[in-house]
Amino acid sequence: MKEIIGGVTAAQGFKASCTAAEIKYKDRKDMAMIYSEVPCKAAGTYTTNIVKAAPVKWDKEMVDHSPFIQAIVVNAGIANACTGQEGYSYCKETAKEAAECLSIPEDSVLVASTGVIGMQLPMDRIRAGIKVMTPDLSPSIESGTNAATAIMTTDTVKKEVAVQIELGGKIVTIGGMCKGSGMIHPDMCTMLSFITTDVAISKELLVEALRVDIKDTYNMISVDGDTSTNDTVLLLSNGLAGNKEITEKNEDYDTFFNALHYVNETLAKKMAGDGEGCTALFEVKIIGAESKEQAVTLSKSVITSSLTKAAIFGHDANWGRILCAMGYSGAQFDPEKVDLYFESAAGKLKIIEDGVALPYSEEEATKILSEPEVTATADIKMGEAKATAWGCDLTFDYVKINADYRS
Amino acid sequence: MKEIIGGVTAAQGFKASCTAAEIKYKDRKDMAMIYSEVPCKAAGTYTTNIVKAAPVKWDKEMVDHSPFIQAIVVNAGIANACTGQEGYSYCKETAKEAAECLSIPEDSVLVASTGVIGMQLPMDRIRAGIKVMTPDLSPSIESGTNAATAIMTTDTVKKEVAVQIELGGKIVTIGGMCKGSGMIHPDMCTMLSFITTDVAISKELLVEALRVDIKDTYNMISVDGDTSTNDTVLLLSNGLAGNKEITEKNEDYDTFFNALHYVNETLAKKMAGDGEGCTALFEVKIIGAESKEQAVTLSKSVITSSLTKAAIFGHDANWGRILCAMGYSGAQFDPEKVDLYFESAAGKLKIIEDGVALPYSEEEATKILSEPEVTATADIKMGEAKATAWGCDLTFDYVKINADYRS
Repeated sequence: MKEIIGGVTAAQGFKASCTAAEIKYKDRKDMAMIYSEVPCKAAGTYTTNIVKAAPVKWDKEMVDHSPFIQAIVVNAGIANACTGQEGYSYCKETAKEAAECLSIPEDSVLVASTGVIGMQLPMDRIRAGIKVMTPDLSPSIESGTNAATAIMTTDTVKKEVAVQIELGGKIVTIGGMCKGSGMIHPDMCTMLSFITTDVAISKELLVEALRVDIKDTYNMISVDGDTSTNDTVLLLSNGLAGNKEITEKNEDYDTFFNALHYVNETLAKKMAGDGEGCTALFEVKIIGAESKEQAVTLSKSVITSSLTKAAIFGHDANWGRILCAMGYSGAQFDPEKVDLYFESAAGKLKIIEDGVALPYSEEEATKILSEPEVTATADIKMGEAKATAWGCDLTFDYVKINADYRS
Repeated sequence: MKEIIGGVTAAQGFKASCTAAEIKYKDRKDMAMIYSEVPCKAAGTYTTNIVKAAPVKWDKEMVDHSPFIQAIVVNAGIANACTGQEGYSYCKETAKEAAECLSIPEDSVLVASTGVIGMQLPMDRIRAGIKVMTPDLSPSIESGTNAATAIMTTDTVKKEVAVQIELGGKIVTIGGMCKGSGMIHPDMCTMLSFITTDVAISKELLVEALRVDIKDTYNMISVDGDTSTNDTVLLLSNGLAGNKEITEKNEDYDTFFNALHYVNETLAKKMAGDGEGCTALFEVKIIGAESKEQAVTLSKSVITSSLTKAAIFGHDANWGRILCAMGYSGAQFDPEKVDLYFESAAGKLKIIEDGVALPYSEEEATKILSEPEVTATADIKMGEAKATAWGCDLTFDYVKINADYRS
């Protein structure tokens, strides 16, 4: 597997475009479209929030029941969540408009929205945006990159990645883009992630690969503990790579799965590392666990602790907050057996052993914690299972962004 | 029932004192002692965090097994949590010192600590503090108030309350003090709360009254979602009111219970309203629930949502975040049936009806949300059950306090 430059237009047959439709933002691109020259198989995972945005309901319906998918229309600025029947009807209108412009069936168009909850979409501008984007669709790397920029809300950087693998002599490409960066606590965030691939694979295995992999990737990140109404990951495969179609869990499946995992993990980490207002990616590893479930519960409890996140912002080796967050997670372990390490590009330091502080250097700890990517590893010495979760620090800017997000 | 001035020294026979022991803070009082002239029955509830501070372990042991309790020694600055066997031995040494000074048994002394996790207590200064405080013990209202000030950490105001009831012609007094104000998410917080009463009651009913009431009071507040290692509520009764001892759930029990509830709810709300860095008390009421449990889950999910808390700081009627937090709580309900109101001293406004926004005035909403106490009420229209939870807004100062708390 090799990483290549690009995103959603890296794989064969995929095109993208974007426009400044003035959905809510002014003077910036805020709509994007992804289109495949040929029909795609699709897999999707969505928020578990009971309050599901209208596009989530539309996409689940289409992915589950449409014979194929060929386009995705995305807008930033308004989430189309808590908008009732009117909001849902706008999903259908959006799909209809795109279908007419692209000459494809209405049920082959997915939609996604991110932004403020509770406002209705300005459908005149959505329709106008689609009309502008259709003739601009392009397979260039730049088109994918521009689309990744257009779907940003409070994100500070665009997020995309692409990789290539070889299956039976054929080059298969997987590319993706996503956006954060608040209300990010995916149980399945307003995380939106779009993955495109030219692999030939059965729909059943495409769905299975995505379903399994989100547990270790998107579902292991948290910016603020708020699981959004709009979280959506969509994976489209159009088969244009020409590999022998993957219809069973063979070596080709494993190769594809590992590459998909790399794409998903990379995008998930990019979201955590660009959490609203954050200055650092905070990685928490639990090792020596009895079970994966226990390790997941412990690691997620630490990355969601406001006190721990504020300490990371302060470059403060306040390990007591990490142990505290593990303690209230609901998972059982013996606090008096825990070893804890801080690690970053600046070095690695063992801070506590068997639950009690070692005489470490605060100065060295602060140096380690001042890097843009910081890892805390807790060894609970109960078994062989492990898990990694990704979050970010809690900063003044997080509060600033969210105290007046709607204004 | 009438509220009176005072706190832990309001009830007959209770004395308090405090001192500047320089446990960690300089130039302020940081140790307090509560003492009853006669032996007390005691009830306690403690953190459910697996990582329990040494004083929590000590107190549970003493409350459960000692024949009676007569004193409590409290320090602020160092939590004596994650301190291993050494930390636990310091609880015993503290109790021993106090026992000698007060001429009472070692096992009748409770201890409580709040502050930084992972540091050992400076036992020379603890012992010196006890020696200074013993002769200063006084039943004056002022002594109680000073003790309430000495146990503060990041609290900005002292927290105490006292009430009187009449039982069979006898005046019974209940007084209490507590402190917050970070790591507050009591499941049973570093909440410490101390309640003293001169009621005559059986130990069994004293324990029962506290056990039942914390569910609707301390356990319904959250500052930051972090359940501390040190959370402790201690309730001492010395029987000096001279009422006929309460030994069954009769009318006297109900009268006492209601008064205890008032004291607990008042202290709990004072903690939430003085959450670290906060500018407002945020009350969330769920009504029309199918069950109490459902209402509790929904209300606690909203008060712990970082996004909702930041919006309250911004006086922003961002109701979508409230609905979102209800949606990911794990409780079932129909988002399209929810009515939501904002209310404060400035007025009451219905914001959404059946899950969709009404054409309310943003200006009026902002006015309502600019008060120091703000209530959001969600009617989920499923039944008659309800619950109220208390939190606070998420501010720049919360981040500031917690980014460098140890320095």
